[in-house]
Amino acid sequence: MNLAQPIEILRPERLLFGTGLVGEVGAYARAQGFTRILVVADAFNAGRVRLLDLPGSPSVFGTVKPEPDIPNLEALLAMAAATQPELVIGYGGGSAMDLAKLAAVLPGSGQTIHDVVGPEKVLRRGAKLVQVPTTAGTGSEAGTRSLVTDPASQNKLAVQSRFMLADLAVIDPDLTMTVPPAVTAATGVDAMAHCAEAFTSKKSQPLIDLYALEGIRLVGRFLPRAVRDGSDSEARAGLALASLYGGYCLGPVNTTAGHAVAYPLGTRHHIPHGHACALIFPHVLAFNAPVAAEKTGLILDALGLSAAADIFAQSHRFCADLGIEMRLGALGVPESDFARMADEASAIRRLLDNNPRDISRDQILAMYRAAA
Amino acid sequence: MNLAQPIEILRPERLLFGTGLVGEVGAYARAQGFTRILVVADAFNAGRVRLLDLPGSPSVFGTVKPEPDIPNLEALLAMAAATQPELVIGYGGGSAMDLAKLAAVLPGSGQTIHDVVGPEKVLRRGAKLVQVPTTAGTGSEAGTRSLVTDPASQNKLAVQSRFMLADLAVIDPDLTMTVPPAVTAATGVDAMAHCAEAFTSKKSQPLIDLYALEGIRLVGRFLPRAVRDGSDSEARAGLALASLYGGYCLGPVNTTAGHAVAYPLGTRHHIPHGHACALIFPHVLAFNAPVAAEKTGLILDALGLSAAADIFAQSHRFCADLGIEMRLGALGVPESDFARMADEASAIRRLLDNNPRDISRDQILAMYRAAA
Repeated sequence: MNLAQPIEILRPERLLFGTGLVGEVGAYARAQGFTRILVVADAFNAGRVRLLDLPGSPSVFGTVKPEPDIPNLEALLAMAAATQPELVIGYGGGSAMDLAKLAAVLPGSGQTIHDVVGPEKVLRRGAKLVQVPTTAGTGSEAGTRSLVTDPASQNKLAVQSRFMLADLAVIDPDLTMTVPPAVTAATGVDAMAHCAEAFTSKKSQPLIDLYALEGIRLVGRFLPRAVRDGSDSEARAGLALASLYGGYCLGPVNTTAGHAVAYPLGTRHHIPHGHACALIFPHVLAFNAPVAAEKTGLILDALGLSAAADIFAQSHRFCADLGIEMRLGALGVPESDFARMADEASAIRRLLDNNPRDISRDQILAMYRAAA
Repeated sequence: MNLAQPIEILRPERLLFGTGLVGEVGAYARAQGFTRILVVADAFNAGRVRLLDLPGSPSVFGTVKPEPDIPNLEALLAMAAATQPELVIGYGGGSAMDLAKLAAVLPGSGQTIHDVVGPEKVLRRGAKLVQVPTTAGTGSEAGTRSLVTDPASQNKLAVQSRFMLADLAVIDPDLTMTVPPAVTAATGVDAMAHCAEAFTSKKSQPLIDLYALEGIRLVGRFLPRAVRDGSDSEARAGLALASLYGGYCLGPVNTTAGHAVAYPLGTRHHIPHGHACALIFPHVLAFNAPVAAEKTGLILDALGLSAAADIFAQSHRFCADLGIEMRLGALGVPESDFARMADEASAIRRLLDNNPRDISRDQILAMYRAAA
């Protein structure tokens, strides 16, 4: 792939990374003189808003749900309409940060969520936006995308807009120390899957491959450590960085079949996104290997695995050894639903079309069966 | 070095990289509706302002000098005061981009250049700023620093401000195709020196080491190709990227002894900055090796050289083989000036204090003698 191919890179202008920096959010708000502040958080992080060290009495929307849906978004937008924030802060995992993006652009714009689905439909930014991730998985703090589930269709609506890019991202890895081992494992593999899928995408970019490989290396090195000991500050930092690099991969390149095949696990069976992606990861890695041999070898090497051994067995064991439940049956997904899941997944062309190897509905179905 | 150590990363929010993108500058100006536009360029680039595809009749300051001094800046500021630009465009090498930064913040602020020397003294931004590099060396398009020579002291005044960060950087590697082989070689080694010095700095950061090593690799791979064939589009892209990554290294880490020892060659003898840094590079690399053995080995490896062989001889040959004149005498620097040059260089504490190995005035003098 030629280095000279055009690419647009959008990044938060300012990014703070490191242990103990969470209070810088308040310093930013003070420096800008903001008084109307809206924090978008799940219930857990709503209980520790004080760590942000915000001035005055910020409004807190503390009911972000996992895999947030349109009603969840609309409740947030109602609060934003009432409080008219100058500053919106996403404080949580991908769900909170994704909703915060929409709360920074939709209120007062005359646009609804349905008007902005797709690339660059958003007309303007209403408020400043700060993102504070508390999990290491989505990398949403660095990106321009927001995913909301439509309860009518069970589909993920993907909004992408340069107006949803954060003004400031504050990544304090210590915020992730409370994440339990199982979630640490699943979200860590999700971050790595962002990197691995972008790295092997038909749309892969040499400028992005740098982050992809480094993100995979960081997960290979630090995820087992963080799962073993959640208070390992350096391991938490390594995973927070891997998550950020995964986010860098999503912008100009994005994921491929791994995420498409994983989505129905979330939309139809409410398996958390990270877990769904981790469960599917080895299946897609092995499926793509024949047409992406060199890059698959680099992924295995970066994970500390051997490119010479069985690709599926090794990458599956990497996930299972982290304590991730890799069987759909054990997660309550009945085989009777596999056909409909395969129908749904195979319709996600925006991701599947960039998979290095063509993948049919029946091949997706075979993956679910292999993971039964 | 622990990954969790705090770091602030400032980046242009939007960066376009790739062949043929230079006209995007005009697209940006049109989208923003700007009519008062000031292009800051050297004489050569002033002659190809049309490539930017700007709307209306932009003002062009076309007399940026190499190693620009305060009178050069003041002439630019006078033009900016007269034209009151909404948009300032730096179009050239580091000199043009550095002056453009100051033209975007000083006019109308009540501050003079002397008020803003040092970190974060600038009070505000006056105009939007777009940077368009036409050499691959300084990485100034991505940074917050501006260097201006004070003719009174012959010192470089270093201004650093978050307000000087570009809103948009447009890196079109084909713009560098007109750079002759000798300048390509010298500026390419300068970009690599930014990476190598930051990589071995006492202030080195794991998050920045990623760019440092990749920048060195790109120079090792592409600089000989671009010097041989200036129309090699991929090689030009590789060097433009190395230059950008060198710029990423400058922000949070910066250079060390290499640049300090090189400065008097520019300020006292008007040797172009890139050439001065290339000439000094092998001397400092070898000097630092005893205290930075592992990282020096990685630098040599990234350049395609052997860590087992003579470090000075190899890195010197790498530069000389590119056609870079490595002798001070041949460049008109008399040995009689070495003592004063060593006095000057050894006073640049902001860089020398971060060198991994303490370096005395006499050790700097010995380097000049070795390069005589």
